[in-house]
Amino acid sequence: MTTTDITPDLAAFIDGLKFDADGLIPAIAQQHDSGEVLMMAWMNRESVRETLTGGRVVYWSRSRRALWRKGDTSGQIQRLVELRADCDRDCLLLMVDQVGVACHTGRRSCFFTAIRDGAPKIVAEIVADPDKLYPAK
Amino acid sequence: MTTTDITPDLAAFIDGLKFDADGLIPAIAQQHDSGEVLMMAWMNRESVRETLTGGRVVYWSRSRRALWRKGDTSGQIQRLVELRADCDRDCLLLMVDQVGVACHTGRRSCFFTAIRDGAPKIVAEIVADPDKLYPAK
Repeated sequence: MTTTDITPDLAAFIDGLKFDADGLIPAIAQQHDSGEVLMMAWMNRESVRETLTGGRVVYWSRSRRALWRKGDTSGQIQRLVELRADCDRDCLLLMVDQVGVACHTGRRSCFFTAIRDGAPKIVAEIVADPDKLYPAK
Repeated sequence: MTTTDITPDLAAFIDGLKFDADGLIPAIAQQHDSGEVLMMAWMNRESVRETLTGGRVVYWSRSRRALWRKGDTSGQIQRLVELRADCDRDCLLLMVDQVGVACHTGRRSCFFTAIRDGAPKIVAEIVADPDKLYPAK
């Protein structure tokens, strides 16, 4: 997917999404080829529009109350391969190509804690040094 | 995963989850072997507990304001293979074995609308008759 203009079809699609009372919709990011679920974050109308037209995933940061162009700080961007909506139009699935790691802990996926044998276990390795991803911290 | 008692570790894990102001946490269901993302729904504390101990996925229905033991009406249950939490403990990933279809439209996944060539396209077939899944409707 490359940079493109907003089309009337895309504008109508975005208008048909069900944003919550805060104007947000949950978005699941999945590595397009391996199927790994990488993370879940939130989008507002503007971030959906920018993601669909820019080809790079942009979320809405609830803590910073600002557009979150994932990777601007860490370089770990997500290229959009395909965006999908669910039957109720209240959740998005982003099939992406993740550069490096999705998680701020330096793991590929944020879902690295699994319940096994009745207790939480960490099931993924740190593959990137968080201090190098976020040098200003 | 089979039926089990709640352990102190599981109770502590559930206590550590970040439920929102409505007492809910988003949960993504993924077919454990194919990697297909099936649906996203919501869980409350009780539904997480019942899912972890019962081995069958139970959500919270926001519209019905009740526990939603998926498949009670349609038979399309989800057996839990593994539950994972994300780094912020505010989202769950349910790796499941989906019996039949996840979507009320009779499609395997709820995410059957994709943006392709600048417009929404339906990219999955109906594989189960919704009138047979929900005969009372």
